[in-house]
Amino acid sequence: MSGVIVTGPPRAERADVDALAGFGVATVGEAMGRTGLLGTGIRPIQQGVRMAGTAVTVLSWPGDNLMIHAAVEQCGEGDVLVVTTTSPSTDGMFGELFATALRRRGVRGLIIDAGVRDTQELRDMGFPVWSRAVSAQGTVKATGGSVNVPVAIDGRVIRPGDVILADDDGVAVVPRERARVVAAASEAREAKEARAREAFLDGELGLDRYGLRDTLKRAGVEYRTYDEHVERAGESR
Amino acid sequence: MSGVIVTGPPRAERADVDALAGFGVATVGEAMGRTGLLGTGIRPIQQGVRMAGTAVTVLSWPGDNLMIHAAVEQCGEGDVLVVTTTSPSTDGMFGELFATALRRRGVRGLIIDAGVRDTQELRDMGFPVWSRAVSAQGTVKATGGSVNVPVAIDGRVIRPGDVILADDDGVAVVPRERARVVAAASEAREAKEARAREAFLDGELGLDRYGLRDTLKRAGVEYRTYDEHVERAGESR
Amino acid sequence: MSGVIVTGPPRAERADVDALAGFGVATVGEAMGRTGLLGTGIRPIQQGVRMAGTAVTVLSWPGDNLMIHAAVEQCGEGDVLVVTTTSPSTDGMFGELFATALRRRGVRGLIIDAGVRDTQELRDMGFPVWSRAVSAQGTVKATGGSVNVPVAIDGRVIRPGDVILADDDGVAVVPRERARVVAAASEAREAKEARAREAFLDGELGLDRYGLRDTLKRAGVEYRTYDEHVERAGESR
Amino acid sequence: MSGVIVTGPPRAERADVDALAGFGVATVGEAMGRTGLLGTGIRPIQQGVRMAGTAVTVLSWPGDNLMIHAAVEQCGEGDVLVVTTTSPSTDGMFGELFATALRRRGVRGLIIDAGVRDTQELRDMGFPVWSRAVSAQGTVKATGGSVNVPVAIDGRVIRPGDVILADDDGVAVVPRERARVVAAASEAREAKEARAREAFLDGELGLDRYGLRDTLKRAGVEYRTYDEHVERAGESR
Amino acid sequence: MSGVIVTGPPRAERADVDALAGFGVATVGEAMGRTGLLGTGIRPIQQGVRMAGTAVTVLSWPGDNLMIHAAVEQCGEGDVLVVTTTSPSTDGMFGELFATALRRRGVRGLIIDAGVRDTQELRDMGFPVWSRAVSAQGTVKATGGSVNVPVAIDGRVIRPGDVILADDDGVAVVPRERARVVAAASEAREAKEARAREAFLDGELGLDRYGLRDTLKRAGVEYRTYDEHVERAGESR
Amino acid sequence: MSGVIVTGPPRAERADVDALAGFGVATVGEAMGRTGLLGTGIRPIQQGVRMAGTAVTVLSWPGDNLMIHAAVEQCGEGDVLVVTTTSPSTDGMFGELFATALRRRGVRGLIIDAGVRDTQELRDMGFPVWSRAVSAQGTVKATGGSVNVPVAIDGRVIRPGDVILADDDGVAVVPRERARVVAAASEAREAKEARAREAFLDGELGLDRYGLRDTLKRAGVEYRTYDEHVERAGESR
Repeated sequence: MSGVIVTGPPRAERADVDALAGFGVATVGEAMGRTGLLGTGIRPIQQGVRMAGTAVTVLSWPGDNLMIHAAVEQCGEGDVLVVTTTSPSTDGMFGELFATALRRRGVRGLIIDAGVRDTQELRDMGFPVWSRAVSAQGTVKATGGSVNVPVAIDGRVIRPGDVILADDDGVAVVPRERARVVAAASEAREAKEARAREAFLDGELGLDRYGLRDTLKRAGVEYRTYDEHVERAGESR
Repeated sequence: MSGVIVTGPPRAERADVDALAGFGVATVGEAMGRTGLLGTGIRPIQQGVRMAGTAVTVLSWPGDNLMIHAAVEQCGEGDVLVVTTTSPSTDGMFGELFATALRRRGVRGLIIDAGVRDTQELRDMGFPVWSRAVSAQGTVKATGGSVNVPVAIDGRVIRPGDVILADDDGVAVVPRERARVVAAASEAREAKEARAREAFLDGELGLDRYGLRDTLKRAGVEYRTYDEHVERAGESR
Repeated sequence: MSGVIVTGPPRAERADVDALAGFGVATVGEAMGRTGLLGTGIRPIQQGVRMAGTAVTVLSWPGDNLMIHAAVEQCGEGDVLVVTTTSPSTDGMFGELFATALRRRGVRGLIIDAGVRDTQELRDMGFPVWSRAVSAQGTVKATGGSVNVPVAIDGRVIRPGDVILADDDGVAVVPRERARVVAAASEAREAKEARAREAFLDGELGLDRYGLRDTLKRAGVEYRTYDEHVERAGESR
Repeated sequence: MSGVIVTGPPRAERADVDALAGFGVATVGEAMGRTGLLGTGIRPIQQGVRMAGTAVTVLSWPGDNLMIHAAVEQCGEGDVLVVTTTSPSTDGMFGELFATALRRRGVRGLIIDAGVRDTQELRDMGFPVWSRAVSAQGTVKATGGSVNVPVAIDGRVIRPGDVILADDDGVAVVPRERARVVAAASEAREAKEARAREAFLDGELGLDRYGLRDTLKRAGVEYRTYDEHVERAGESR
Repeated sequence: MSGVIVTGPPRAERADVDALAGFGVATVGEAMGRTGLLGTGIRPIQQGVRMAGTAVTVLSWPGDNLMIHAAVEQCGEGDVLVVTTTSPSTDGMFGELFATALRRRGVRGLIIDAGVRDTQELRDMGFPVWSRAVSAQGTVKATGGSVNVPVAIDGRVIRPGDVILADDDGVAVVPRERARVVAAASEAREAKEARAREAFLDGELGLDRYGLRDTLKRAGVEYRTYDEHVERAGESR
Repeated sequence: MSGVIVTGPPRAERADVDALAGFGVATVGEAMGRTGLLGTGIRPIQQGVRMAGTAVTVLSWPGDNLMIHAAVEQCGEGDVLVVTTTSPSTDGMFGELFATALRRRGVRGLIIDAGVRDTQELRDMGFPVWSRAVSAQGTVKATGGSVNVPVAIDGRVIRPGDVILADDDGVAVVPRERARVVAAASEAREAKEARAREAFLDGELGLDRYGLRDTLKRAGVEYRTYDEHVERAGESR
């Protein structure tokens, strides 16, 4: 393990984080060109919560939460802790005691590509968590790792200070330099969706609204009645 | 891709769909001879909802929701949209805008062997969904596919017009020609279970009620006291 | 299949079970030296329930619940049914009728390394379940197996009479001979955690409380400012 | 289970099967419009073998190979046995004794969405198998199922008499009515690939050969030098 | 972790191990009543090798091979090392250096519910391995565990001194007290299979040989011609 | 998608790549402090091949290989193509035609976090591949992506020009700036392992060679005879 704790990384501007916090994860993902989303295996332990903050990243050895202890000291107001392991692990590296310490420092929540425990207590505290697994399995504090280095979850790179946005649909990562631009694009996207919603309520079809009838034609998709189809396919295939 | 949109397929009779809607998925599965159930990977995004309707099927390219747009036009009152992909995909192909358009047409819900997004909004709208995954990842509209052709999920074939029944236990598919027969069998099954429930409340054992003591004997299963068992097995095995 | 139903196995003392019931699964796992926990794939179908009891174990053929019927007769007040299969299976081997029969006998809940059905009814009844899967798929009653033999789930051995403790974090198994010792150790653990909670609320760091600054040093973990780090790593790595 | 053994289903013409046997699975999949392929979980137990034949289908209960015994009688010269289960199973339902019986009847190989055993013996016999798993776990002969009904693996429907083509890349299913047309399309595809191979050996780029530079432009993909990219992205992102 | 290294456990008799070594894993599994087999996720890194020996068991912390070092000292002529971890891990805990040390002590091979590395070197040495994964990821030597305690893989308990038998089909565990009995039963099974092989070569059907036509009838399985079936099912279902 | 093709990225020095090519993946992983290894799901389609080169990276839409066509033009002598997708995909995005084009440009092999096809032909050509899956499923050429941007597989970031080293144990990524240092550390590691091999052949134990008896003591691991252990554990636990 490279073994470094990086202090004082740049963080996205608070105002930009707050602006992003006004949008859902799906909207922000669209605004980034359909990128920047963690995979479907990282799930919330609670329902109906949206969270936004700046990443403090941790790279830990599996079965070992030493580096989370080191990371607590690097966390401050408005941060989100992002924990990964060097090998896949589902152990319960994080629980209510860590949440107690983090909340005191103003940390907004946890993203962990491993397990979490004390889930009932965390829900009761209102400390939001998105995790790979729920596990009561405890860990040791023996092997080094890193804090505030770039990490990657499900093919997405997360650097310290990047914006983390999470809700019931999952987790988005917005590079800290792009936070303002993405917030603006999200606003535009939301407005566009509002207009589409109105149109759909009025009965317009996406086929017409987005000009997709031509796309279908170019793709060689044919319309057939059921009887034509059965006749051509033979035996209903 | 075969690229066909089939219009006007036969649908199960509304009365039969409504009759089936009165039973749980587990009951209907039993009534069909323990067949017709999708696998355990398709899960509801809500709790406590039961839904029944007639299938409008979609076969899409992964990462592409063009054919869902085409399918909306084929959907009507009492339908359930059933979406599959040609290769495994967890992308969020469906969200609140589609649900808005479908609900206006009287569609009852969605079964999707892929991902869904805007889950909080969908729960708030009361539009029920059973999906393989929850994902904010958006999709393109570029590649053709089919609507209202037979599709298969977890080894079960679903044809357009078949009855889809879904609740917290999962999803059942009743072939449209068998809907009436299966509804009747479900009623019989439910009555049988009600009698068993009474008997069990009275303390009768399944071993006696179903004549299973003979089955155990024929299967060569022996009764032993714990002490006999420890002695024979050596060291408690 | 070995085919044996063992009657009258020793069970952990009720008082010890009740003592353990006062602690969370994560606490008890720590008290056992971070062992004894089933894996993350066994999940509760309800939220916010803690359960403790003595195991009645079942080893069944996949797709067959004959031996659960045999096990009901072996269950009594304060027991927890623990069901495994000889090969991996997600079928819905257990539902509301079994729960009705078991509850009448004073059984406290179910741990099943397979599927469960009638989940809404089970939640309504307040019969708690931790399972590998939710499935409406029914099973036959044809092939033998065993009751009250040692079984294993996720690498943990469960013997009849061992204490099962389960909550939102998962499931713990406490060997029946160690129940009293583990309950005492759990109490000590909880007291220790209460003190840590106070300290963390006061702003103490785990790094200091647990003497981990030395561990970091011994592990070769260095502190660097962000600027130093960028310079050394080149291009932000 | 529906419980039916269908005798004498139509089979694809032998000449068409033999024509298809001249192409690889990937080529035939392209010729069918990129459809008809089983998923990546069905793998060969041998390397370097290509097999083609007409499907005799089996739907079995998990952990039970009764219906494979029933299917043997329905198999003849040029057939391929295709075995599925009503619930996911990896048990070793098929081994060298079945292969001995099938080979005597002229059966060409096995596709099984479950487990196979005696793999070394099967390789030694030259009886080719594509399976979900390798497993020594034996099965019982207790519960009914069906032979020669449509089954589905990984979303693909396989009807009795359809052509099965398998090689190191996986398994393709060609509907029996389309065998001739697909064989012709495969030949055309192979010729097209031969021309592309020549062009690529001569140094032509796919970008030019397939007119993809325009596609890139329309998709908004830009070319940038590394220095431009680093400058724009900030810190090498 | 319990943290104990148990010295001098009883081992199955060498003669019984050697007798079992004469049979395949599938045969021995049948002889034990279709039990005792590890799951399908433990695969050989070589092909065509059969191995038998007495288990020396290891329970390790994930990402940590300290206890394998401790286990080497406990290994002797005719043993097989069996390694498990307290939480799921795929790290490469074992490589060619360990194999060198073990081979010198007469150890016959490795079963590991985790990862192995140096696979090419191990194949070249002829040291056989069955593992959950292949991984170059190295491990630390920091956290305690146990040697020669009962462990469990895929629901099967393995005690020190039990017989491990492995080949291309997977891994079987024979309790040390039952080794002789199982060897005898395996011989009987093999003879029975030899007679069946002869019968199948002569064209006898399993349906007749095992009296399964009655089983089919009792199970309610009907024979129908294809035309009858299509007529009844409607639209070829 | 960001949609950028970056031209002319820096590449690790050829001499350093060649030096690294002399070591196994496991050795290089150790030399990097047990980091830099892709996960266990990326497997070779051939056996006994070691490959080293400089990465040309591709980020593609699932089910779409447009960007591989774009990447071919960016590849040159000594490169390794590294392909990822924005969402998980197992489609066969790469086959023998691409390998033909790449080989002509001096490309050494492929790492693909998706599927590959024409595997027999690729083995026959001697073009080495490490992939997530083998799949005959073809792809379209419709949606944009990027070439030569940083990508991540299994939590490891791969930048264009980084060194890729792959063998039967998996795949390592060496940052281009560290190639020389890591090659030197690998040589030291290999020498250390050679000395350990000699010692183990002479019968020395790792416990003694690495001073692990103290580690065991500090970890609280006790030695017990089997009889002591059985007595303490009760019933052989």
